[in-house]
Amino acid sequence: MDLSFDDMRQWIERPFAFIERIGLKAMVLEPRHVRLMVPLTPNMNHIGGMYAGALFTLAEVPGGALFLTTFDVTRFYPIVKEMSIRFRRPVKTDAFIELSMGADDVRRITVEAEQNGKADFVLDGEIMDAHGEVVAISHGVYQLRKNGL
Amino acid sequence: MDLSFDDMRQWIERPFAFIERIGLKAMVLEPRHVRLMVPLTPNMNHIGGMYAGALFTLAEVPGGALFLTTFDVTRFYPIVKEMSIRFRRPVKTDAFIELSMGADDVRRITVEAEQNGKADFVLDGEIMDAHGEVVAISHGVYQLRKNGL
Repeated sequence: MDLSFDDMRQWIERPFAFIERIGLKAMVLEPRHVRLMVPLTPNMNHIGGMYAGALFTLAEVPGGALFLTTFDVTRFYPIVKEMSIRFRRPVKTDAFIELSMGADDVRRITVEAEQNGKADFVLDGEIMDAHGEVVAISHGVYQLRKNGL
Repeated sequence: MDLSFDDMRQWIERPFAFIERIGLKAMVLEPRHVRLMVPLTPNMNHIGGMYAGALFTLAEVPGGALFLTTFDVTRFYPIVKEMSIRFRRPVKTDAFIELSMGADDVRRITVEAEQNGKADFVLDGEIMDAHGEVVAISHGVYQLRKNGL
């Protein structure tokens, strides 16, 4: 099943109210490659920076976004198992994350999930501000699971 | 400066829009001891559980809440440096976290922040659902900083 950019964008930007309220936007959605943005304004903390929970969300959603662009959504679904995030400096602009997966990793994950019903995969990300500074570093452990198990 | 429960509650439940939208509630606010709740309904994901970003927020806010109840808010402020969270199972009810700090830890952090301008402190938490099951485990590294440095 091939999903159009707009189909995928709807699933990433408006899957449920929490993500909609944050205003997350999908800028690039390609097989094995996504770029997402979270705007500062609705997510400002009491000192005018982006709240840590919005940065966490920007770091977490790529797992689902890469799932949609890369894997067979009719046969598998993803969950997040663990997420670590290190906040390097205050974020005073919109925030961005760009993540890619290697074709070999995709094959390994697909085969393993097909055979065992599940396969872990790791995404290491850098959150950048609008000036290209790395403002936070994330490490996410996800799991691809086979439907119906 | 002594803050009343209602003063502190306002600062914890309504510090900025992100937290208000989640509906986080402060249930216990005592020196070195807080209990917080995040409701399921406004934070549901596409499969009816609580979204990971709401659980992250419930795990992160205790750093600020314990700061307000425990430290001298006229002389120090807190930041979050790192947060790790492990999701053990889907959360199908409101979620709760209860955290305490030892009096010795508070003394050590205060002296160190006084002398060096900053002091790290760690909070390890368990997020529980309404049935008392541990649904997520968090590890947060915060820093108390002296004002004006």
